Amino acid sequence: MPIDDATISALAQRLRRDSLLSTSEAGSGHPTTCMSAAEIVASLFGREMAIDPRDPNRPGTDHFVLSKGHAAPILWSILKEVGAINNDLLTLRRADSPLEGHPLPLDVPGWVKVATGSLGQGLSASVGMALARRLAGDPGRIYCLMGDGEIAEGSVWEAAEIGAYDKLANLCAIVDVNGLGQSGRTMHGHDIDAICAKWRAFGWHAVGLDGHDVAALAHAFDDARRTGDRPTVLVARTLKGKGVKLTEDQPGWHGKALKKGPELDTALAEIGDPPLHLTIEARTRGQASARPKAPTSAPAAPMYKVGDSVAPREAWGEALVRIGTVDSRIVVLDAEVKNSTFAERFKDKFPGRFVECFIAEQNMVGTALGFAAEGFIPCASTFGAFFARAYDFIRMAAYSTPPHLILCGTHVGVSIGEDGPSQMALEDLAAMRAIIGATVLYPADGMSASRLVEEATRTAGIVYLRLGRPKNQVIYGADEKFPVGGSKVVRRSDRDAVTVVAAGVTLHEALAAHARLAERGVAVRVIDAYSVKPLDVATLARAADETGGLVTVEDHSAWGGLGEAVAAAVRPRRHELLAVTGIPHSAKPEELLAHHRIDAAAIVDAVVKLTS
Amino acid sequence: MPIDDATISALAQRLRRDSLLSTSEAGSGHPTTCMSAAEIVASLFGREMAIDPRDPNRPGTDHFVLSKGHAAPILWSILKEVGAINNDLLTLRRADSPLEGHPLPLDVPGWVKVATGSLGQGLSASVGMALARRLAGDPGRIYCLMGDGEIAEGSVWEAAEIGAYDKLANLCAIVDVNGLGQSGRTMHGHDIDAICAKWRAFGWHAVGLDGHDVAALAHAFDDARRTGDRPTVLVARTLKGKGVKLTEDQPGWHGKALKKGPELDTALAEIGDPPLHLTIEARTRGQASARPKAPTSAPAAPMYKVGDSVAPREAWGEALVRIGTVDSRIVVLDAEVKNSTFAERFKDKFPGRFVECFIAEQNMVGTALGFAAEGFIPCASTFGAFFARAYDFIRMAAYSTPPHLILCGTHVGVSIGEDGPSQMALEDLAAMRAIIGATVLYPADGMSASRLVEEATRTAGIVYLRLGRPKNQVIYGADEKFPVGGSKVVRRSDRDAVTVVAAGVTLHEALAAHARLAERGVAVRVIDAYSVKPLDVATLARAADETGGLVTVEDHSAWGGLGEAVAAAVRPRRHELLAVTGIPHSAKPEELLAHHRIDAAAIVDAVVKLTS
Repeated sequence: MPIDDATISALAQRLRRDSLLSTSEAGSGHPTTCMSAAEIVASLFGREMAIDPRDPNRPGTDHFVLSKGHAAPILWSILKEVGAINNDLLTLRRADSPLEGHPLPLDVPGWVKVATGSLGQGLSASVGMALARRLAGDPGRIYCLMGDGEIAEGSVWEAAEIGAYDKLANLCAIVDVNGLGQSGRTMHGHDIDAICAKWRAFGWHAVGLDGHDVAALAHAFDDARRTGDRPTVLVARTLKGKGVKLTEDQPGWHGKALKKGPELDTALAEIGDPPLHLTIEARTRGQASARPKAPTSAPAAPMYKVGDSVAPREAWGEALVRIGTVDSRIVVLDAEVKNSTFAERFKDKFPGRFVECFIAEQNMVGTALGFAAEGFIPCASTFGAFFARAYDFIRMAAYSTPPHLILCGTHVGVSIGEDGPSQMALEDLAAMRAIIGATVLYPADGMSASRLVEEATRTAGIVYLRLGRPKNQVIYGADEKFPVGGSKVVRRSDRDAVTVVAAGVTLHEALAAHARLAERGVAVRVIDAYSVKPLDVATLARAADETGGLVTVEDHSAWGGLGEAVAAAVRPRRHELLAVTGIPHSAKPEELLAHHRIDAAAIVDAVVKLTS
Repeated sequence: MPIDDATISALAQRLRRDSLLSTSEAGSGHPTTCMSAAEIVASLFGREMAIDPRDPNRPGTDHFVLSKGHAAPILWSILKEVGAINNDLLTLRRADSPLEGHPLPLDVPGWVKVATGSLGQGLSASVGMALARRLAGDPGRIYCLMGDGEIAEGSVWEAAEIGAYDKLANLCAIVDVNGLGQSGRTMHGHDIDAICAKWRAFGWHAVGLDGHDVAALAHAFDDARRTGDRPTVLVARTLKGKGVKLTEDQPGWHGKALKKGPELDTALAEIGDPPLHLTIEARTRGQASARPKAPTSAPAAPMYKVGDSVAPREAWGEALVRIGTVDSRIVVLDAEVKNSTFAERFKDKFPGRFVECFIAEQNMVGTALGFAAEGFIPCASTFGAFFARAYDFIRMAAYSTPPHLILCGTHVGVSIGEDGPSQMALEDLAAMRAIIGATVLYPADGMSASRLVEEATRTAGIVYLRLGRPKNQVIYGADEKFPVGGSKVVRRSDRDAVTVVAAGVTLHEALAAHARLAERGVAVRVIDAYSVKPLDVATLARAADETGGLVTVEDHSAWGGLGEAVAAAVRPRRHELLAVTGIPHSAKPEELLAHHRIDAAAIVDAVVKLTS
């Protein structure tokens, strides 16, 4: 039985009422951004979307992404109205309640698949979900609600261009154009034509409409569903704080709850409490034909042999192909450097599971997160330096607690050579280590790199792989294990004077230093700290204890990388921290390693210093 | 005497020749992206731009930003042709040469004002420069050359929307649409109409043309200069590798030099070496009327008194007004949170020096950098979490070595409370510390915050101020000094059992812990490590030496923040590192400080552990 306009309008008023009540009870929050979106949200959940209130993950159902995450109260309200959750809305923002100030998947699994609240990220995740559903043959649609303030974020236009490029007809965005930002009018105010023009220029079907007109919304959603060759955006003119005289289209009410007592009571009286007879029937748009499944066999072993000359980054492409051959959950995303990261090898073999994201790293990470939410194992790569572009997305991805999100940064440190500092990741270890729950791996050769890509696919959450540019000798055999949290003691004796802790390119410098020191009769232990986070504290502490001190050496800035990690975790009595402290210049890799004092000669000097 | 089309075309061929020669000599680099842009660059420097080859900083001259930084060889070539530099182009990419693989201001001061090479950043800096010139009454124009691949970056559209919003008629962008990216066709290939449509929708005057037609370029630049109400973009259809059969419009030639010998020789023969009679006459577009000047008097003292209740973030607005009153170089940039950061106080007082950047943090930082390049002291603020959005811009800003760039992140850590983790900066200390050359300050009260804003304006390079959300007691008087690299020993005795090192909100927890421990007869030293980078190592080391160990406590992730900084710099024998290790939830600030074990009770426990 079709649900009539009056019911949707009554539902919208209920959502307004709930949003006011819950934020006033919490004493904080954003009721007015809920009030502008009330008819949109009511129309989506009450009439447009195919949902099963008992199972948010049911194949063939639609998914809603609240990109304007500060409107969380209306999400909790609608989920309660449709019977998806049963929490007391008045516990909003309380430590003992899942009803967060901004949505997190941890709290309401399935209904919330990605954390929002840093604006301009939801559409990228939606693009990823829409791509994933196409790949999985799942007819369920993705709806993404944004604010008009947030479309100032460039990442929205990155997602828009990919949504159009990939012709995502299963994606529908809605911009809630209430014209008011946090601290003033938005750039375009209520000029929905100007906003529509942007989306059309970016290749979308754009529909301008009154976002409080439930009949117009129904018509536009219908239009979106019938548009088969591209995504649709509804650009909805609304009023912030709609329905209450005190707040309607008034500035100064962005992140502010109404005061309990007369202020709230008057508002509630204006909203009213009309009777609402809403019946949500579970429905789908059909079944998925190819849901991603875990593999039934292990990948083949890497073909590298000890002594081969292999750049760690090459192992990225090699391992993706190996793993992707047995695991159809693997999808690979590229930011238009696939020939440098070797991701193109995967593209050549599995073009259907490869997504070209062009030079737009934020959207690449957000899209990857969307794939993760749909059961795939996304593997996204670009130069390590350019993941800095997506750092806010990575931060938010951590709060999305994805089952898997594998990021591979290549071309790291001064050892890339002549291209200069713009292309050198020198901050990525610090930045990625700081992400709560993230794993950070930094293998030194092709074999360990290849095996650690396998490990990454078995590791929950965000895994960052740091894979160097230069070719190095393969030093490990195919039977070696590289568990996350482990390390490799690659040189040891009973009379080691010092331990050198290295990773990536500096491990090879450490091995050279070991040889030079051996000629002088000085024995040093050499440890490959390929697991930078978590660190193999036990092995490192034992080495610090058994030898006279530690030299850490890393092709990374001196702050927040391997050296500090070791210093804090191990507390060696004596420690020389070798790392990059000045701005690098274009030069040959070996010149740069020498200039920045992270080469074998510098390691020898540091060992001599600690032993003299 | 006007320079004729034939001369510009000959100059373009010279630039192609130089780009081929220098990259082949270097054995790496990007000749083909230079070859597509040859007529554009020749037209700009040879005819369009008002420059003084002897003085790149001469008021009233134009400035060129090479946003597609990998085309550096053509920049070095044109600068040599016009007599601005006199280096041997064949030293490209060598350690002993200023001719970097991607442009850095350090190498060619004045001619290069911002580092490029991470794509999509030059237009933001150009927007900042154009705004700065308008503010300074300088009629010189800004020209920004982008690649077509790079306009996939969302940051380009952030800059575009602000360029149009602020009606920057003194800004002219050029998109070199060669249709080829690094690893394949660009999104739009040679469809310049589709690209023009995007720019027009974003409010620009867009001119599509043949980028190898020097007469058409001259006409379009003329058109741009006559467009008085908005910026202009030339969308120029070009061929990558133009002029050489082997490379022209061919894939696989992105970052690749031609081999010396027959390959290069054939290419050079195709290019030819026509005679070139180029005379560049120094000229300006007029004089600047209001160049920014250093102040002649000191700002007034902060008005806070010990015991006042002030949020550190409030001091941001307060200090900006105080300093801005005497220093007209201060400009303030906001990402639409000015009421939360208190930057609106500056806007209210000095609207002409305030730039609303809306919710687009990348462009805010890039625009700030552009102001810095023009002699202003840009002060940009948003929530600390959202500077993660601009991390690549901050990284590149470090390589731009700006005289000043002050970034203030508010709403840091779990102490923001109910809004939840999306709004909590928990990685900013790690990320900002990792930036080479950056200063990181984290004051605990209104007075130190206010004074440290003053210090920031006297500190070269990037300064990140981390200013907490909650109100705290002012604990310092107006006569206290807060030098960068210093710290404050706020509690000490001769029998201190342990030293507690805190900053920001945790300093107040440390003081509470001090009081509770005193009741138990346990004396602890308390140090305010307001200068997180550089750290006051001497004071901390003395404290570690004189007391039984260190407790560090920070409202930040446990990786790369204050605790690790202290561990690496001081190497205390005993150290308890208190920091956030799990994903926070919405709750009251005090609940979150307690839950994440960074409150007074946790500090007491850590002290007890170290002393038992």
